[in-house]
Parts: sequence; C-alpha cells; structure tokens
Amino acid sequence: MIRVVILGFGNVGQHLHKIFHETKGVNVIQGYTRNTTETTTKAGTPLISKISEIDSSADVYIVAIPDDAIKGFTKELKLKDKLVVHTSGGVAMNTISKKHHRGIFYPLQTFSKNTEVDFKIIPICIEAEKENDLKLLRKLGELISNKVVDINSSERAQIHLAAVFVNNFVNELYHISEDILKEKSLDFELLKPLISETAKKIETLSPSKAQTGPANRGDIVTIEKHLSMIEAELQEKVYMTLTRSILKRK
Amino acid sequence: MIRVVILGFGNVGQHLHKIFHETKGVNVIQGYTRNTTETTTKAGTPLISKISEIDSSADVYIVAIPDDAIKGFTKELKLKDKLVVHTSGGVAMNTISKKHHRGIFYPLQTFSKNTEVDFKIIPICIEAEKENDLKLLRKLGELISNKVVDINSSERAQIHLAAVFVNNFVNELYHISEDILKEKSLDFELLKPLISETAKKIETLSPSKAQTGPANRGDIVTIEKHLSMIEAELQEKVYMTLTRSILKRK
Repeated sequence: MIRVVILGFGNVGQHLHKIFHETKGVNVIQGYTRNTTETTTKAGTPLISKISEIDSSADVYIVAIPDDAIKGFTKELKLKDKLVVHTSGGVAMNTISKKHHRGIFYPLQTFSKNTEVDFKIIPICIEAEKENDLKLLRKLGELISNKVVDINSSERAQIHLAAVFVNNFVNELYHISEDILKEKSLDFELLKPLISETAKKIETLSPSKAQTGPANRGDIVTIEKHLSMIEAELQEKVYMTLTRSILKRK
Repeated sequence: MIRVVILGFGNVGQHLHKIFHETKGVNVIQGYTRNTTETTTKAGTPLISKISEIDSSADVYIVAIPDDAIKGFTKELKLKDKLVVHTSGGVAMNTISKKHHRGIFYPLQTFSKNTEVDFKIIPICIEAEKENDLKLLRKLGELISNKVVDINSSERAQIHLAAVFVNNFVNELYHISEDILKEKSLDFELLKPLISETAKKIETLSPSKAQTGPANRGDIVTIEKHLSMIEAELQEKVYMTLTRSILKRK
C-alpha cells in the first residue's frame, strides 16, 4: 500500500484524489488545502488547513499548487527525508526545497472541474533524484495509468511548451472562430463536428498528412479574400502568422 | 426518389457517393471523374470521364471539384434548366455558370480518404436561387444529416473563414508541437490524450471557460521561459501572437 498526502485541492489535486481513492494499492491518508472549514473530503479523506498538522508518515507528498508557490511552500513543510513531488509541467524539479527527497509526478492532461478523465490513457511523466523514489513513483503511476514515462526536467519543459501549442493555443483558435461567427450571429455549434474530427484525425494521421485548406494548397486568392474579411488586427495577425507557417512547409 | 449525379470524385465526392449509396430515397445515377478507366464505382454506380456523356435526367448535379475549377467546369456542362450545386465553403453561389439553376450543398466537415465520418452530425449548409430548389436540397440533406441549415453565400464565407481557424490552423499547431518534441527526440504520442481532451472539452464548455495556461493566468515568467526555449523564428511568432491574443481578453 502506497500512502499519499495530497497538498493542494485545485483541479489536479482533486482529480488525483479521486482516482487514487478509486484505486487499490494506494491510500490518500490526508489532504491539505488552505481556507477550508471541512474536516474531510466527500470521499472521507481527512482534510487539514495548517501545514503544522501534516501527517509525517506518508510515502509520498504530492504538491499540486500554483507553479509560483511551489518553492516557498515546500520550504515551509516540516518533513524530514521525505519524498516530495510536484505535478507541474513547467517547473524544474530543483525548485522544490532541497531539504526533501525531490521528484515529479506530472499527469500530461488538462483538468477541469466536473469533467471526467480516463487516467489509464494519460501519460504520467515521472522524475526523481533517487532511484528508490523513482521506483515508487513508477509503481504509483502504473496503478492509475498505462503510460508512465521517465522524463527529466529539461524534456518536461519541452513537453510543456509543446502542450501549450496543442492545448491553450488551440483553445484560443476555437475562441477566435467563435468570435468570427458571432459577428454574423452564426452559431458556434456548427463548427463542433469539425473541431472533433480535426482532433480525431490526428490519432491515425500525422499533422503533415492531415493538413488541408487554402494555405496548404497555396490558394492565394482565398487567403487574400479571408484577410479582407477579417476586421480585428490580432485576428489578422493570427491568420497571417499561421498561414505563413503552413506555406513555409511547402 | 432524388436522382443525383456527382461530378468529381475527390474526398468530398467519394464520401457523398458512399453516404448516398447507403441511403434510401436517393439514387446516384452517375459519377463523373476525369482520367478514369473504370466504368463503374465499386458500389456499381456508372462512371464516365467525358462531359458530353453526362446524364441529363437527374434532379441535382453536385459539383465536388477544386474551388478554382468550379467556374469553368460549370460553364462547360451541356445541361438545360438543371439544378447545379457545388460543395465548397469558400466559393460564392454565383461562381456557378448562370445558365444553370444554382445552389450550394456544403457539408461542414473535413474529409480524408479511408476515414469514416458520421454524416448524421455534420451540418449541411444549403442555398439556392429558387425556392423549389432549396426545398429539394433540404430534403436531400435531411436524408443524410440531422442538421440542415439555410446559409447564404456571405454567411458561408464567414463560416469557412472560422473553419480555417479550427481546422487548418489547429492542425498547424499540432504540427509545430510535433516539431518541438522531435527536437528533443520526444514522442508526439505523448500529446494525443491532451489533444483529444482539448477538443472534447469544447463540446460542453465555451472556449472562454475552457482556457487555462500561462497566458490565461498572466504568468510572464513562464511565457519568457518558453520564448527563450524556442529557436525557430516562425514558432516564436506563433507563440507571441497567440499569447497576445489570449492576454488581450483579460
């Protein structure tokens, strides 16, 4: 049985708590979150709001708090020779206070409140200073996912950068297209099958093979027509920049 | 029974042929494609490669050829008072030669060879000069889809512009992130669950509600770190432009 304390109950912390709670072989013995008046989670896990009350008997402490708070928070922890990991894609392992045994447990996914995710297919990127700790993290990861990978901090930073493109930037393109439709009182619902199919295609086709459209076929007439239709300056910049990026591959 | 001739057997033409063939109430009486030596499709539909051999007894002629060929091709058709429609998002209805009854039958989806699509959920955007023709197109559309919408050429151009953002540009972001991972010999497979979830989220959340990430939380430290990691000039431009687009919404 792997005994876990989860520190922070934002989206990542809550999803990890839920999946661990449902999984045999792992026991969340305690959760920490600031500003709570509850004494247990809905699942019955003891909740505390004071750092001084953190149980010192766990095998691993999972810090799931905002990136910029990791350094200070891990410094404050009164633990001795304990494995403390964070769950962030963009923060190096050595940001964790060096008084701990340090590691990473990074589930490569976007988590939202009230959205179910299938952990089995989520890559869990792990890293640790000590071989024994890495083994423990691998064991913990394999309890919930079929894809546990050893990724060092420099690789993880690269993955996080790539993730920003396929997640945050893709979502911004959804947002812009919603804006464009709204201008003519058209319904964003119309685009949802296309959005879904565009993502689905990539499961079996490389992005290079999947590409279609005006820029891909060098259709300057349509590109110019589109540019003449766009009014917002930033939308035009986005259109131009991504069009140039596609054209350059030809 | 609606009698259809399909002119052009690229991705759109083939997918329409397949779904019509499977659907009661519609009969593809003929297909036209240049440079074929076959005399029927695999499904048994007669195939011709000469414009002069086009059957003049159909109810509707669906032109599914490249955008820039629509004008010249429809001029060449030796039909009299027949409904001729094209399937393109980006081309106005009046591009079709005016000697025909003109219309549009635009399935709002990305089609690839060997990829199954569910026509029931694909919006079919229709337009026609004559009320009777519009009725016929609606009837034809409703045989294959649950979502047939009247869209005029100006609205369709706007939809096509928005579609470029969520389809071609999104795919280019997939491509860039694949490039970024390749630089460190990391596997693009790692990002696929994130790609899938990002698209899935949008089915129930607005793009505004779904957004997360460095730009969304105004995390300048991470943005600057990412910019320092990017080497290719165009990648940097894409990162900057989309980051500004997200920041501007705050």
